[in-house]
Amino acid sequence: MSYRFAERTKMFKTSAIREIGGMIQKKGKDVISFAGGNPYEPYFPNAEIKQAFERVFESGNASLQYGLTTGFMPLRAAISERIKSKGIQAKPEDILLTTGSQQSIDLLSRVMLSPGDVVLTENPTFLAAVQSFESYEAKVVAVEGDKDGMDPEDLERKIKQYQPKFIYVVPTFSNPDGKVWSEQRRVALLELAYRYNTIILEDDPYGDIQFHAEEKYTPIAAMDHRKTQVVYTSSFSKTVVPSLRIGWVTGPEPVLKYMSQIKEAADLMSSPLDQQALYYLLRDMDLDAHIRMLSKNYYQHMSIMQNYLKTLDHSMVSWVEPKGGMFIWVKVHESINATELLAQVLEHGVAFIPGAPFFVEDPKQNTLRLNFTHSSPEKIQIGMERLTLAFKQSVKLG
Amino acid sequence: MSYRFAERTKMFKTSAIREIGGMIQKKGKDVISFAGGNPYEPYFPNAEIKQAFERVFESGNASLQYGLTTGFMPLRAAISERIKSKGIQAKPEDILLTTGSQQSIDLLSRVMLSPGDVVLTENPTFLAAVQSFESYEAKVVAVEGDKDGMDPEDLERKIKQYQPKFIYVVPTFSNPDGKVWSEQRRVALLELAYRYNTIILEDDPYGDIQFHAEEKYTPIAAMDHRKTQVVYTSSFSKTVVPSLRIGWVTGPEPVLKYMSQIKEAADLMSSPLDQQALYYLLRDMDLDAHIRMLSKNYYQHMSIMQNYLKTLDHSMVSWVEPKGGMFIWVKVHESINATELLAQVLEHGVAFIPGAPFFVEDPKQNTLRLNFTHSSPEKIQIGMERLTLAFKQSVKLG
Repeated sequence: MSYRFAERTKMFKTSAIREIGGMIQKKGKDVISFAGGNPYEPYFPNAEIKQAFERVFESGNASLQYGLTTGFMPLRAAISERIKSKGIQAKPEDILLTTGSQQSIDLLSRVMLSPGDVVLTENPTFLAAVQSFESYEAKVVAVEGDKDGMDPEDLERKIKQYQPKFIYVVPTFSNPDGKVWSEQRRVALLELAYRYNTIILEDDPYGDIQFHAEEKYTPIAAMDHRKTQVVYTSSFSKTVVPSLRIGWVTGPEPVLKYMSQIKEAADLMSSPLDQQALYYLLRDMDLDAHIRMLSKNYYQHMSIMQNYLKTLDHSMVSWVEPKGGMFIWVKVHESINATELLAQVLEHGVAFIPGAPFFVEDPKQNTLRLNFTHSSPEKIQIGMERLTLAFKQSVKLG
Repeated sequence: MSYRFAERTKMFKTSAIREIGGMIQKKGKDVISFAGGNPYEPYFPNAEIKQAFERVFESGNASLQYGLTTGFMPLRAAISERIKSKGIQAKPEDILLTTGSQQSIDLLSRVMLSPGDVVLTENPTFLAAVQSFESYEAKVVAVEGDKDGMDPEDLERKIKQYQPKFIYVVPTFSNPDGKVWSEQRRVALLELAYRYNTIILEDDPYGDIQFHAEEKYTPIAAMDHRKTQVVYTSSFSKTVVPSLRIGWVTGPEPVLKYMSQIKEAADLMSSPLDQQALYYLLRDMDLDAHIRMLSKNYYQHMSIMQNYLKTLDHSMVSWVEPKGGMFIWVKVHESINATELLAQVLEHGVAFIPGAPFFVEDPKQNTLRLNFTHSSPEKIQIGMERLTLAFKQSVKLG
């Protein structure tokens, strides 16, 4: 039989990255993959999480009941307290707990986007966000930019031209290209958002994984003193563990109100059990010390990976050393197609993600993304030996 | 500043029941509330859940990593096995894990409903489902029915007239009116769905809470041997605990495929941690014995409540004894407005939910819903004493 799906479903595209992921998995267990975006499992605070769940169970059976759509209030209060150090002022009531920041992105899209509406993004940008925008039949338009962030002139031109419902940015250690926006560009974006009455969706899942503690990257949400323009989302997936699936979002009250209402229809609430466990974890564990450990160790992972890149012909390979996050974004010579390169390096037992699928417009076939957080330092060494060898062979042959 | 929300957001209504809930809460802790739909906390298998989480943590740090969008495969396999006893054949790959069955409803709505599309429902019906349908700008049309289910003639007429995208039913112990559809009506619905190429969304959160073990209520999904017509959803919120927020859905492969894809955009995945814990719980605990205990005890809760109703003037109050589920649906004399009655009984320290908000069309102001699962037998006694007293006074005054 044939099914009569919604218009939006016909437009829905499955993620190219998932497909590549499937291709890599087929190659078998011996492949060292720098393709995903997972954190390193031995760093997980297993014992502390176990203890946090014990606290929940000790607190009695009421902890196993339904919770609020907006989330477990003591956790919202703890988040409100934590983000003060980033300069973000949000009352506990102004924080909505979600199933990962992906849901924050999706809920904002759902309350804002009618078919044909425009969202402006960086280029390249986080693919799963684009998937959500497009699933509501929105049009995604790329803004030109450089290593410091979006180009304010092109941004203003496109705001005027498209009157976007919002501007989606990952200004601190973005995915895929790991860039950090300059303070000036952050200010410029916010000023344009004020001037043209446009919302900014600031996605900040990586901001805590920072390699140079002395440098400060102010969230745009912290600059929005009127609290009218910025919807800010983050999560504990990279800093605690992914399996809790706890994200959160704050923003202008009228927007957040609708997001909470629509969350009721979407899933009634995210796991109250996990939210309570995370509350006890934050209460009993020194998460800041844990994040410092993560940042220090991931810096080492990144350095090992980068040292191998440095052995390659500089006219063939370039990258900007990331200041945090989880990825090195690599440009190879224009004569090299990263998807073909992937097929070749896979034969050597190593994988990455080609960069082209991350582009909203004008995909650069000579880009690729390397993740340095999922593999152990030893595996990064072995994998990068394979990768650099495969690369050198490929260049020689090509 | 003013925000430019999506069209669908402007149509979004907050649940009347939430508002009444807020009114009841304001009255304070001394109110005995039969308004909600929560299970009774002392029956929760706290120790078993604690143990199940211990099993997860023992299984190693990989259990704290990201999981699959479709859900933890061993749990999907366990569900596939469990539902065989209901006559539902679904391979593990044909089961999608969700954040409660509310998300199953919402994902189906999202892949099926364009603005103006029609969903047919019972009248009254489950309000949060309607909220989801309407959030996609669908039109909800009620089908006439009686105690045995939808009237096949009216159903066929409305299928022809509206060509609905799907028909939403809760055929076993429905919310709010606790009814059980007859076998004949289930067959009639399925045949019409085949004939007119329409999907049925069968929502079955309460089916396990059954008071008469000898009676068999076949899910419509079990009758759909072609596996083309029925999307079936259920959850563990009523039988294990609500705080795990684990629901699941099965249905025709093309529909399920899109639901999985759209779930990726919606929240990437539900809590893998909770899914793993539920897997160990199902492996190590006799859930069927637990459900028999729940059913036996809730039958007692219901009987206590019903015995008080029996003391009331039969010309003023009527109801059908529920055969399972969580609610008694009560009709009072037409001269009585249940919302006004609620205001009066609240003064006596007891609460219920007026029935009118559950109606999609033609709200019956003289109906109300009593929940018998959340309160202890003792509280039900005290609450029903207050309620019957208040009711008698109210009738005398009215």
